[in-house]
Amino acid sequence: MRARKKKWAPDVLANNPRIIRDADAHARKLKEYFDNNNPLYLEIGCGKGRFAAESSRLYPDINFIAMEREPVILAAAARQAEERGANSLAFLLLDADVLLDYFKPGDIQRLFINFCDPWPGKKKRAKRRLTHEKYLSMYEELKIPELHFKTDNRSLFEFSLQSFSEQGWLMKNISLDLHQSDMEDNIMTEYEEKFSTKGFPIYRLEATPPK
Amino acid sequence: MRARKKKWAPDVLANNPRIIRDADAHARKLKEYFDNNNPLYLEIGCGKGRFAAESSRLYPDINFIAMEREPVILAAAARQAEERGANSLAFLLLDADVLLDYFKPGDIQRLFINFCDPWPGKKKRAKRRLTHEKYLSMYEELKIPELHFKTDNRSLFEFSLQSFSEQGWLMKNISLDLHQSDMEDNIMTEYEEKFSTKGFPIYRLEATPPK
Repeated sequence: MRARKKKWAPDVLANNPRIIRDADAHARKLKEYFDNNNPLYLEIGCGKGRFAAESSRLYPDINFIAMEREPVILAAAARQAEERGANSLAFLLLDADVLLDYFKPGDIQRLFINFCDPWPGKKKRAKRRLTHEKYLSMYEELKIPELHFKTDNRSLFEFSLQSFSEQGWLMKNISLDLHQSDMEDNIMTEYEEKFSTKGFPIYRLEATPPK
Repeated sequence: MRARKKKWAPDVLANNPRIIRDADAHARKLKEYFDNNNPLYLEIGCGKGRFAAESSRLYPDINFIAMEREPVILAAAARQAEERGANSLAFLLLDADVLLDYFKPGDIQRLFINFCDPWPGKKKRAKRRLTHEKYLSMYEELKIPELHFKTDNRSLFEFSLQSFSEQGWLMKNISLDLHQSDMEDNIMTEYEEKFSTKGFPIYRLEATPPK
């Protein structure tokens, strides 16, 4: 979703109850934001939030935080989550670069990265890909036991396979054409629906950090 | 190529000078079959041998052994290699299962697996895939420093990515659509040409065993 200005966005950002507004106050105790001991799953770059909202609806015993760095997009996601009746779902306006300032090791039980920016082209840009060694090291530091990754971008997936391999992550449930595979509980993002409908393959894998 | 009976095959198998006929006598000293100290590259399952013959023609300072377990197919490969002027190329009628009986650790500098049988379906059959843990262990035992793998079979490639990952092999130069990538020195097999022409993606990777 392009971050066009929306008249309703400031109001949502200021008042929607699902948005973690005082993140700095919560820093490094975001897990406690939820008043229970359920596991916490994090999605980085949630876009319009359909994946997180659907996940939350299907798995009510999991706490979800959906992170997004674009305010207008986050506002749209929070607004739509209301309609979707997703409980235990909170939104966080944050860039992945500062992840370590907001979570403690062991907080996050699963990380979702869905259709993140592929940062195509120059090698210099590779550092911004969420599966770059730089980010994998952060996930390791946070002791996230499981990462689920989807993309329609072939180059990004090729890059990511190599990146996980180089960093010693163990990959499993690899699919090079998710919608032709027998995975049953796939939850589609907005973007995924659009691209898979056009016949483009969706790539997916699960990975666990080195022990 | 299906292994139909061919009238000329017995003669080629008996007399073609490129076929290593006395493999048992050479057992574990196949590297010495070539009268020089050039590196040895092995292709398992060479089919009609175009890849091996092309490779040998392009890289005259490399010794190639092209292995195939189907006699008629091997005969066809050996016959065609003559026409292609491939030097330093020998053929070996052998099943991959007995690889350890014929080569010593350190003999083989690079292994090629091109479009091997995907053994689809049942889990039991997975053991026969040339990228199964069982075979990777053999390649490790032979201290093969580098493996190049190509296939058009999506399930086999998914299986192989996971298998390499599980066994701690390091993967690089991964391509999920080789003929749309910028790899310049790709040598096509007969099979590859047929399938890529039809628009099917060709998957490829290079892998090195755990240190």
